[in-house]
Amino acid sequence: MSSKVRCQITMSLDGYVAGPDQTEDEPLGRGGERLHEWFFGSAGASDVDAEIAAEGLAGTGAYVMGRNMFGPIRGAWGDEDWRGWWGPEPPYHAPVYVLTHHARESVEMEGGTTFHFVTDGLESALAQARAAAGPDLDVQVAGGASAVNQALRLGALDEVLLHISPILLGGGERLFVDVGAPRFEIVETRASRAATHVRYRVVR
Amino acid sequence: MSSKVRCQITMSLDGYVAGPDQTEDEPLGRGGERLHEWFFGSAGASDVDAEIAAEGLAGTGAYVMGRNMFGPIRGAWGDEDWRGWWGPEPPYHAPVYVLTHHARESVEMEGGTTFHFVTDGLESALAQARAAAGPDLDVQVAGGASAVNQALRLGALDEVLLHISPILLGGGERLFVDVGAPRFEIVETRASRAATHVRYRVVR
Repeated sequence: MSSKVRCQITMSLDGYVAGPDQTEDEPLGRGGERLHEWFFGSAGASDVDAEIAAEGLAGTGAYVMGRNMFGPIRGAWGDEDWRGWWGPEPPYHAPVYVLTHHARESVEMEGGTTFHFVTDGLESALAQARAAAGPDLDVQVAGGASAVNQALRLGALDEVLLHISPILLGGGERLFVDVGAPRFEIVETRASRAATHVRYRVVR
Repeated sequence: MSSKVRCQITMSLDGYVAGPDQTEDEPLGRGGERLHEWFFGSAGASDVDAEIAAEGLAGTGAYVMGRNMFGPIRGAWGDEDWRGWWGPEPPYHAPVYVLTHHARESVEMEGGTTFHFVTDGLESALAQARAAAGPDLDVQVAGGASAVNQALRLGALDEVLLHISPILLGGGERLFVDVGAPRFEIVETRASRAATHVRYRVVR
């Protein structure tokens, strides 16, 4: 198996990965938490969803993460004390390269996750993540929308796993904006009552 | 079976049902024809797509259609000679209530399709279509996006069959804009390499 760069992200029917009015208290915006009901097992979630959630991070040797995915939009995370949303043991268990404008020392968390802060852009972060993942493990762009959009625009993604949640958000952070014209091919679709999960190959 | 109001529509991954720069020569806008490859059997279309295309119009007693779906955006269709895009025998085989600002005599086509022109809005068109369809057959909102969006906003749709085409259009006519906050439930998902077809119940 050769290493791929992939991402997975949950999108509403109207194309948003976070609702309007994102705040520190409500980082996914108004109504945005409903996007992830398939993941947390509510709203008709089934074995299919649990299987997809479990597969999600498997086979991944390193992550690249946008600034807003790591910390609040305003406020604390210029702060040296901010260590992400996930508590002492984040679910990544691998190096995570966080895009930022503020240089900062790496932060080692419990369970194998280390946050590295990259100030020279997505291509640099992807190169570092690929080197860390090695030839056998994949790199994932962990979100948010703007990091995924930028990776698509750069032609850097091999695969997108899209979780389409049956909700409307009416506003917020849109996926697939200003991404150029990548060609998508459907690899497989799996479905439950909670979400439709489609894996696309991105032809570059 | 009791009569429902439903619609089916093909949407790109980035949420458009027609591409940018719609013209009389290119009514689906730039790149918009690729949306319907699943329907026309190209691009990895399979038996699933053919089955869904065949089911599409079954059980329908009348249609409501937006102005742009019937005729070009500019140009001919104030014209009494314009009889739709479909040639002498349109695929509807039932009465079709076309939303317009211009009163006009009904036009009877071959094969059972009659175009009626409704100048007093979507609710009136839906009421006429329901009466024509009777208690056993469904009414379909045949598109385009603005008619579907308006029907959602009115709480008039029971079901949406969304064909999600694996393409990006980058601009054009967006679905699910300004539709209020209807709740969608996934009824079933069927998939091929050409499109992902999801049937949603709209809870009103």
